[in-house]
Amino acid sequence: MTNLGYTPEEPICAIATALAPGAIGIVRTSGTGCIEKAAELFSRKDALKNAQANTLVYGWITDPETKQKIDQVMAGIYRAPKSFTGEDMVEIFCHGGINVVKAIHSLFLKNGFRQAERGEFTFRAYINGKTDLTKAEAVREIIDSKTNASRSRACGRLAGNLFEEIDEVKKLVVDSLAAIEVEIEYPEDEENISDTFDESKLVLAKEKLNTLASSWKSEKLYQDGAKVVLCGKTNAGKSSLFNSLLKEERAIVSDIEGTTRDWLESYADFDGIPVRLFDTAGLRKTDDVIEEKGVELTKDLSKEADLVLYLIDSLKGLSNEDKTFIEEHKKNSPVPLILVFNKCENAGTALDSSTADSDTAAEVNSSAGAASSTAEGAGAGVPCANAASSTSGSRSVYISAKTGLGISELVKCVKEALESSASSEKETAGLGSERQKECVCSALERIEHALLTARSGEYGLDAVVQDLEDSLDSLGEVTGSVTPEDVLSSVFANFCVGK
Amino acid sequence: MTNLGYTPEEPICAIATALAPGAIGIVRTSGTGCIEKAAELFSRKDALKNAQANTLVYGWITDPETKQKIDQVMAGIYRAPKSFTGEDMVEIFCHGGINVVKAIHSLFLKNGFRQAERGEFTFRAYINGKTDLTKAEAVREIIDSKTNASRSRACGRLAGNLFEEIDEVKKLVVDSLAAIEVEIEYPEDEENISDTFDESKLVLAKEKLNTLASSWKSEKLYQDGAKVVLCGKTNAGKSSLFNSLLKEERAIVSDIEGTTRDWLESYADFDGIPVRLFDTAGLRKTDDVIEEKGVELTKDLSKEADLVLYLIDSLKGLSNEDKTFIEEHKKNSPVPLILVFNKCENAGTALDSSTADSDTAAEVNSSAGAASSTAEGAGAGVPCANAASSTSGSRSVYISAKTGLGISELVKCVKEALESSASSEKETAGLGSERQKECVCSALERIEHALLTARSGEYGLDAVVQDLEDSLDSLGEVTGSVTPEDVLSSVFANFCVGK
Repeated sequence: MTNLGYTPEEPICAIATALAPGAIGIVRTSGTGCIEKAAELFSRKDALKNAQANTLVYGWITDPETKQKIDQVMAGIYRAPKSFTGEDMVEIFCHGGINVVKAIHSLFLKNGFRQAERGEFTFRAYINGKTDLTKAEAVREIIDSKTNASRSRACGRLAGNLFEEIDEVKKLVVDSLAAIEVEIEYPEDEENISDTFDESKLVLAKEKLNTLASSWKSEKLYQDGAKVVLCGKTNAGKSSLFNSLLKEERAIVSDIEGTTRDWLESYADFDGIPVRLFDTAGLRKTDDVIEEKGVELTKDLSKEADLVLYLIDSLKGLSNEDKTFIEEHKKNSPVPLILVFNKCENAGTALDSSTADSDTAAEVNSSAGAASSTAEGAGAGVPCANAASSTSGSRSVYISAKTGLGISELVKCVKEALESSASSEKETAGLGSERQKECVCSALERIEHALLTARSGEYGLDAVVQDLEDSLDSLGEVTGSVTPEDVLSSVFANFCVGK
Repeated sequence: MTNLGYTPEEPICAIATALAPGAIGIVRTSGTGCIEKAAELFSRKDALKNAQANTLVYGWITDPETKQKIDQVMAGIYRAPKSFTGEDMVEIFCHGGINVVKAIHSLFLKNGFRQAERGEFTFRAYINGKTDLTKAEAVREIIDSKTNASRSRACGRLAGNLFEEIDEVKKLVVDSLAAIEVEIEYPEDEENISDTFDESKLVLAKEKLNTLASSWKSEKLYQDGAKVVLCGKTNAGKSSLFNSLLKEERAIVSDIEGTTRDWLESYADFDGIPVRLFDTAGLRKTDDVIEEKGVELTKDLSKEADLVLYLIDSLKGLSNEDKTFIEEHKKNSPVPLILVFNKCENAGTALDSSTADSDTAAEVNSSAGAASSTAEGAGAGVPCANAASSTSGSRSVYISAKTGLGISELVKCVKEALESSASSEKETAGLGSERQKECVCSALERIEHALLTARSGEYGLDAVVQDLEDSLDSLGEVTGSVTPEDVLSSVFANFCVGK
């Protein structure tokens, strides 16, 4: 939103469904007098004007000027304060054609309604105390969520778990502040602050904020997803694996080396984590200029990824090109890499512990430099679940892209690798945005500072009071109870129109 | 729809909004017990179960198995017979993310709802007498409509104007039938049928059906739109005109001849007529293979079009290539062609009657063969509105794609050309589908036959009765009061799911 004025006397209006053909479309309005204004455009004017709150009224949208019928609709009526925005609202449920939705929208704009800015409905809800910022941001998250896990986490915030958690921390800080202020008013004696100050509540607040702050990494993973790149020599089966992971025939698969020249990108759900999966040109020396360009791109992509899956043809074993790529990658890039041994469909026991392949994997890990040599024993040649215990070496997984063998194991392994550095306790409330994280971190910092000050005994209680008041301001920013205008503006600017 | 059984005891369910991110999404259900079944998936079970008809209930969709919250929603409740389908209905208004809409839909499918077939909601409405086939088809038309005019015509049918028109014709036929049957039961004397038979009502019925049948051409134009192809020499300004008609920069414009090689296609609204507009490669002799291929494509496109706009650079005048194309086109193709003289921005009076350009246009028309020679005087060198009176010659329009001069005149001229053979009296009811047209034509045929029979006096009244009964069957098929199963099946198969 660019204009942050709260103008309930200006009824706003927006198309609330995606502009693509569907059975039903929605034009949404909110503001003082919007029911009366909408009634002027409705065939059954009195029915609409006198409609009770939370009812659906049948009728036609008609142009009062031309008397032309625009569409047969149901109008949903909400009356302040019992509505999403806390204002009177009318929602027009019309037929879902692009032209008809636009025609109704235009008619409203011509007859007393103003186009809503991005997020303006939610902004009005916030101003009217119908939502706080954590819930408002959760709405945007839900709309953007790509997997059930992402949505479920956002739902927790929409239901208020983050709001409540922040509220608890606030109470702990407020209680501590109150105790300190009593101390300042009625000092019992001239004892040192560190002796009289009960820090237990602040310590608890600090712990809670720490947990919240560290939740962001995992939440962000579920919101924004990760970039996973398939690399490997030509004909190792990257496109087959790509299709297998997407559960569709996206990439052209052939036995001819160098079939994939451009990289392909598609979206996949890795057990709840939204993943942008890249299929790349196979790595090989080539005279084909277009193909060589593709190989260069593959190397670039692997550097920007969150995870690289390096595919090896287990029938051919580890080649010198494989070793070179893996070594170079480990030397130059912090991006984790999983070795995927493909074409294990006939290996039978390949998925059990010790096979010929395990030697190959061990060889890779040892060839990948001193840093990972400690992982050789634990990390190689066993299914991912065990290999995952080795964090410094490469993990290895054995699959057959052709038969699907080991694919679910691979998905699990990718998920673990992506989550490894991100705590993912789903039961507790997590943060929903970078903005929230920054507020929480600065509240945490002030509380830590307050604790240090109190413990040092060098300063008076006043210094602690200032820290705690600052931390309360930051906590207030998370939920929006204390929020500068520019923060509000950026929060609602990320919304879609009509929300 | 493939399955035409009416199974109200099976609640159906479908996503009713387009599967693209928006503020609000809708999952729609209908059928016996659907309110109770939906309540099992709703946080406020009793509120939903006891909700009055046409009310909106706030709550959460929750998975009864995992107890997980899926989304915060409003549920719209309708109770039979006062609903779109005539059955109990629940519409879930949720947040408009793709994942969340799909998640709610899946949850319903897992909990007692069946996926609705295409058009099954409307089919149920039809079975329950909530709509006839003309109104049902109008709903599909409204969703598909691309311009206000298309939608407005469909709205007339949804409001029942076609249904009423058919009903009136039916009454005329039924009255005639009744009179004839009285005649058969109680023959006054042995007079010839042609003497006693009052044919006035049948003549009126015939006239009405004639008007309806001829309305289809125009209605089809507004529904399906027309294909208009821009042709002309390279650098005549086709891409500039294309962009100007689309009101956007779609085609790359440059002074270099042969800039457009592929043809471009885009959609434009020509005063209510949806037009697929094609920009083509300029016509010139070329050594560039790709460009030559483009020129061939241009010629093919112009043959399949509903209208060709032939652009001429008025600064350079008419070239031999122009003449050749126009002559060839007129000889080989029945597609109407409009001459568009571009680059008239400095011509000043070029839009008035007699200028240098008018001579050029006259030259074209005369060069285009004997068939059009009569049009020379009337059709050339004057603005389109006048030129339109000449139907056999080419129309000419003077424009400047650069300044916009004459563009609205051109649009009007295109509209007239497209409508010229299609009657377009908007006030009367028109037909909405090929299916309806076939039924109307066969009813018309039977009535004409009945009139001939009666007038000939050669056959008895029984022959007339059979004709009129057949015509009533055909009229019944239009609205669906008499309708074979296969007709129903194909009508609803054209719907989107959720409608």
